[in-house]
Amino acid sequence: MTTDQLYAQIRAKKTMLCVGLDTDYSKMPEHIQRLALNGESAIKGELYKGKARSIIAFNKAIIDATAPYCISYKPNLAFYESYGIEGMRALEATIDYIRSKYPEMFLIADAKRGDIGNTAQMYARTFFETMDFDAVTISPYMGSETVTPFLAYPGKFAIVVALSSNKSSADFQQAVQDEKPLYQVVMEKMMEISTPENMMFVVGATKADRLADIRSFCPDNFFLVPGVGAQGGSSEEVIRYGANAKGGLLINSSRGVLYASSGEDYAEAAAKVASETARI
Amino acid sequence: MTTDQLYAQIRAKKTMLCVGLDTDYSKMPEHIQRLALNGESAIKGELYKGKARSIIAFNKAIIDATAPYCISYKPNLAFYESYGIEGMRALEATIDYIRSKYPEMFLIADAKRGDIGNTAQMYARTFFETMDFDAVTISPYMGSETVTPFLAYPGKFAIVVALSSNKSSADFQQAVQDEKPLYQVVMEKMMEISTPENMMFVVGATKADRLADIRSFCPDNFFLVPGVGAQGGSSEEVIRYGANAKGGLLINSSRGVLYASSGEDYAEAAAKVASETARI
Repeated sequence: MTTDQLYAQIRAKKTMLCVGLDTDYSKMPEHIQRLALNGESAIKGELYKGKARSIIAFNKAIIDATAPYCISYKPNLAFYESYGIEGMRALEATIDYIRSKYPEMFLIADAKRGDIGNTAQMYARTFFETMDFDAVTISPYMGSETVTPFLAYPGKFAIVVALSSNKSSADFQQAVQDEKPLYQVVMEKMMEISTPENMMFVVGATKADRLADIRSFCPDNFFLVPGVGAQGGSSEEVIRYGANAKGGLLINSSRGVLYASSGEDYAEAAAKVASETARI
Repeated sequence: MTTDQLYAQIRAKKTMLCVGLDTDYSKMPEHIQRLALNGESAIKGELYKGKARSIIAFNKAIIDATAPYCISYKPNLAFYESYGIEGMRALEATIDYIRSKYPEMFLIADAKRGDIGNTAQMYARTFFETMDFDAVTISPYMGSETVTPFLAYPGKFAIVVALSSNKSSADFQQAVQDEKPLYQVVMEKMMEISTPENMMFVVGATKADRLADIRSFCPDNFFLVPGVGAQGGSSEEVIRYGANAKGGLLINSSRGVLYASSGEDYAEAAAKVASETARI
């Protein structure tokens, strides 16, 4: 997908919302948890049972409910990996469901991968060839080599973590190096080796006051902004300080959407929160 | 596993070698690649075919050949993930094989994970509960919160990347922050929240001249040292500059061992390289 196509989606749906699929069995409504206890679901000739069955049912309902109100989905790999092979099968079924029913969606693997060149090449293959993602989040600690293999795929994006939304982002990301915070050093280095057509940045929303400054030295790249909703950031502030002329934001909400209700109305509740978040 | 048990293994086997299982189908000997073309292998009632069958056969032969000459195995997750679900099944079969036949081995997931608290908790569960690893490598960019969930498992270790062995480690890790290189800032912060019984560090061997300095401010923790062999580091130098009084090193070689020969004698060739690397 190109950024022009993504901008067109933002204008058409009047939203910058990305829904984070941090799907946690222990937080699902009881009637969805119970699907894991017995029985199985058949999808395209494959059988799913146990927690995978609950995860797929939960994701499908969330996706159908929120698709009119978002332009992107972002499965968090940790949640699927924690359930082992069955969790990874549930992830594949979820990707396949989105790709076949909502082909316009921008699909992000939230994986925070980052390793030396030959290993980074394998991760690029994992997310862009074995799986069908448009983008993958990357941790930049090991340097530019961590990112370059991802840049070679036309229409695909590396999303480098610059400034995260957690408290301990202060430990290293905000410390000053050559008179600049480390996150700025990282972004400037990454901008040297990439273009806005293959590189985006994670910029945490709970630091909305810093967004205007970051936008000033990085005017053209998309920012993926976590920290809205459960983590306390406001999507209005993010848009005010972080948007560029065309938009240039993917504003993520995960828990705030997924667990808007713990009852049988969870999908309707998710749709309501989604429809009110990151609107433009 | 405790560090005392690990030190006992080092003394008993007279080596600090960790064999990195960066298993790449395209680099296997032809007769092992051919196993993927037809037929299947049954292991404990599970069937494996395709590339998973080749990966398992290759790993088993490498493990049986090198087990007398190493104290640790380190599967690199990227290589298994790149083959999708079948790759992850091959990884699980490999772990199970090591656990049942060589229970004394220290088993490291080379995953370079790193994310905010609730996601880090899921990754800890993935590698320490769903899978049976002793340790997992972690990228520290997002701060101390990235690591804390891993520290809560007795007998398990977080192995934080401090200084990696790749060229672009110079981009950020070696840049100076508060008069110290970033890798030192990272290590000092991590030492504050941990003990040598739950924390190790990745320290790249291709900077052997820096090892003595790093050892001076971090005398007690184990270092996992990559970059020996294919990446050009010398294990003698690493031991000279990096060992502490008890040893305190896991010296990794991956490609140098795995692909020592591309012929039918690959396992014997791997054993020979392993027997000559990181001896004490």
